[in-house]
Amino acid sequence: MRRRYLALALAGLLCVDRAGAQFAKPETAVRYRQSAMFLMGNQMQRINAQLDYSKPNLDIVRGGAALLDVLKTVPFEAFIEGTDDVGDTAAKPEIWTETERFKKLAGEMQDRVGKLNDAARSGDVAAIRAAFADAGKACKNCHDDYRRKR
Amino acid sequence: MRRRYLALALAGLLCVDRAGAQFAKPETAVRYRQSAMFLMGNQMQRINAQLDYSKPNLDIVRGGAALLDVLKTVPFEAFIEGTDDVGDTAAKPEIWTETERFKKLAGEMQDRVGKLNDAARSGDVAAIRAAFADAGKACKNCHDDYRRKR
Repeated sequence: MRRRYLALALAGLLCVDRAGAQFAKPETAVRYRQSAMFLMGNQMQRINAQLDYSKPNLDIVRGGAALLDVLKTVPFEAFIEGTDDVGDTAAKPEIWTETERFKKLAGEMQDRVGKLNDAARSGDVAAIRAAFADAGKACKNCHDDYRRKR
Repeated sequence: MRRRYLALALAGLLCVDRAGAQFAKPETAVRYRQSAMFLMGNQMQRINAQLDYSKPNLDIVRGGAALLDVLKTVPFEAFIEGTDDVGDTAAKPEIWTETERFKKLAGEMQDRVGKLNDAARSGDVAAIRAAFADAGKACKNCHDDYRRKR
């Protein structure tokens, strides 16, 4: 891991890989992805709470779906190599050995969150309910396999 | 504080104040605002790192400024009453006794982040540098008075 950070530092000096240097330490990457995931989980809960009502507050649903749509890619910048056993991460090491599958599941979530946002903007409550259930399943699919139980 | 949560629960039952019930516990509100602030701080650092170069990577600057522009209001949903001495919060109690001033400083930050995003989209590096400095000062103004030193 130390070697990776040396490589990043060198890349920074050489102006080669500036985009890769967004996290000062492995712990920063863990906190970054956890922060984004926490905001996403909270927005999913807010939407879920509204969908318990026959007439959900569509402003809350729309606000939540719009924020999810922005955040949906954010955690994945931070699943960088060398951060599978850092701090209180719940990320399973399989994320880095089954990278293609992990990316596929992340992509499915991102697609479905996009559709949830579309449905929220349309204001069609039945469509929102269906899209929300699909998005929730996509979260669960990935968490089941790649997030450690705490 | 317990009374506030009872009030929120009742409001939920009565469908009166559904928007206020977005945090299950005070700790959730603290984590929510810390998560949003952490993502914002990280994006400020990424932009700052680019501005050390004579030719910043404008994709990174634009991506960071766009995310900041979305997140700039997010932490403030979570500075709710009864969360001044919860968990590891660094929020000073003055936030809740000087509410108008706190809101004013938050508003200044939000204006300046909006201008940073405009500058980033324009691609004018001198304008980005000036807008970034202004935004950074707005962060500091509020942190100096309302965030405890750790």
